[in-house]
Amino acid sequence: MKGNVFQRGKASIGFEEGPLIIGCASVAGKKEGEGPLGELFDVIEPDPMVGRETWEQAESALQKEAADLAIERAGLVRSEVRYLFAGDLLSQLIATSFGTVDLEVPVFGLYGACSTIGEALCLGAMTVEAGYADYVMAMSSSHFASAEKQFRFPLEYGNQRPFSATWTVTGCGSFILGKKGGHVRISGITPGKIVDMGLKDSMNMGACMAPAACDTICRNLKDFGREPGDYDRIITGDLGQVGRRILLDFMRNNGYSIRERHTDCGIEVFDSEAQDTHAGGSGCGCSAIVLAAYILPKLASGEWRRVLFVPTGALLSSVSFNEGQSVPGIAHGVVLEHA
Amino acid sequence: MKGNVFQRGKASIGFEEGPLIIGCASVAGKKEGEGPLGELFDVIEPDPMVGRETWEQAESALQKEAADLAIERAGLVRSEVRYLFAGDLLSQLIATSFGTVDLEVPVFGLYGACSTIGEALCLGAMTVEAGYADYVMAMSSSHFASAEKQFRFPLEYGNQRPFSATWTVTGCGSFILGKKGGHVRISGITPGKIVDMGLKDSMNMGACMAPAACDTICRNLKDFGREPGDYDRIITGDLGQVGRRILLDFMRNNGYSIRERHTDCGIEVFDSEAQDTHAGGSGCGCSAIVLAAYILPKLASGEWRRVLFVPTGALLSSVSFNEGQSVPGIAHGVVLEHA
Repeated sequence: MKGNVFQRGKASIGFEEGPLIIGCASVAGKKEGEGPLGELFDVIEPDPMVGRETWEQAESALQKEAADLAIERAGLVRSEVRYLFAGDLLSQLIATSFGTVDLEVPVFGLYGACSTIGEALCLGAMTVEAGYADYVMAMSSSHFASAEKQFRFPLEYGNQRPFSATWTVTGCGSFILGKKGGHVRISGITPGKIVDMGLKDSMNMGACMAPAACDTICRNLKDFGREPGDYDRIITGDLGQVGRRILLDFMRNNGYSIRERHTDCGIEVFDSEAQDTHAGGSGCGCSAIVLAAYILPKLASGEWRRVLFVPTGALLSSVSFNEGQSVPGIAHGVVLEHA
Repeated sequence: MKGNVFQRGKASIGFEEGPLIIGCASVAGKKEGEGPLGELFDVIEPDPMVGRETWEQAESALQKEAADLAIERAGLVRSEVRYLFAGDLLSQLIATSFGTVDLEVPVFGLYGACSTIGEALCLGAMTVEAGYADYVMAMSSSHFASAEKQFRFPLEYGNQRPFSATWTVTGCGSFILGKKGGHVRISGITPGKIVDMGLKDSMNMGACMAPAACDTICRNLKDFGREPGDYDRIITGDLGQVGRRILLDFMRNNGYSIRERHTDCGIEVFDSEAQDTHAGGSGCGCSAIVLAAYILPKLASGEWRRVLFVPTGALLSSVSFNEGQSVPGIAHGVVLEHA
């Protein structure tokens, strides 16, 4: 069968050529701009409303801005992008629907909670590698205020947050994939399974997602016949400090030590003490802006040669939580290499 | 560039081989079982709770049942399904997350409102055709009560519904795609753009979605160089009676007459007068169960040779609606042929 060469193990795909990331953009909020990566973001929006009337419209505005900037960086115009793979955290993906309608690009709406940029990069890479499109876009966003409104409490209520809670990143990362140009290649993917360990604490999503991250990283290593040392970094999405500790324990139980080369976008994006963000950043935008602003430049320069990027998602809604359901996790693995 | 042969026009893909639908299943609710297609469904669930404690868990149960039945029909076991493309109408796709966790299959969570089964079949077909997987599953579900709770009013409130309103179908359709076996082939796809005409009436979603359906059908005809007569049927998802009239008008304005060969899953699934369902059925499950129970058998038998299947979606949430936003539409086109 044609293409069987791509299939690795039970779920991974190793690309023969591997699409290149030929343009990207990061648009971040004010708090993110004040964090350790502040100087690396392409745009910092000082106004949390981005000049709009609602938080949701503000998040859509972040998408518009990131999409157009990534297209410009790739040296393209909107009509050259054949498909868009995009999503956000909001119910029925309204940030994406209203944020991307003006692009007039056929769109595949995705939901993988905070792992969405991983899902988008997987499907986008599969599409370009197979020759279905010359250029596609992968994008995801989140907004602190639209997420708090949806999943937690009204901001005006001023509720207290446990130290295991994360802080939803305001930001959007957008990526153009193509066959030529750029210095970072997607050489393989390990799509994620839903893993449900029965945990129910929505204020400790790092713990809920760590088992899924462990599952995806272990499958990636087995499917590609690699050891952790074959990656310069293994970078999860938004496990935060609590989830990181659990992941390292779980990996050790599986026979892998990744402490030295693991980091987490949620840990990198904020100075948790100075910025009072507790366990770290989270949200669909967290791993997306950290990838665009921090990870890709290090791969492009050759400082890192190969990175396993593993955005993580907690698959809850306020309805499932209030009905006493658990919080399953998912994590999509994307292998990024210097090209 | 490899694979350019696939690309048709601005967005369509014509497959060289074309994956086959090698197994499918339809699980429907009691009301759907009492409708004109009642005898065609594989399973009719008499209990709207499906023995569970919440509407959402009931919808997840429909997914479990449909998934396992489709796998059985395809002569496979769960572990042979390499990827799952699935979604539902609920916020954060909780019906899918909790309904599919036991499958232990890597999952791409999709949201395209009621067009989701079209999005799933597009991505599933691309994946199999490219050789990334031998077998994948595409699935979507909806449940009348979980959808009413989320988008409209509590059932106990007994609100009146305008005649333009549709009735969310309780049901789940599941499809296994592979390279060999089965008598219906996916020969091409036309992924949908988001189309926003500024309409704001969530009780008239047919009108909101008709422009998107028209856009996708016209692009499909142009991209493949076809006339409506090249299809035995052009079947939209859930435009209902009101949306159908608008679609026919829009198509005529674009120079195409499709009246004789157009129908709509939402119109087929209920007897609108006898069942008091007003404009017709809707929901992610509507086009999915009608495809499995009604359309595929006619294609498999050769009664129809080629069908353009166009599930339609209205991209609203209760938040976007309450904030006064419009209701954009999307429609994904899937070309199905007798094989």
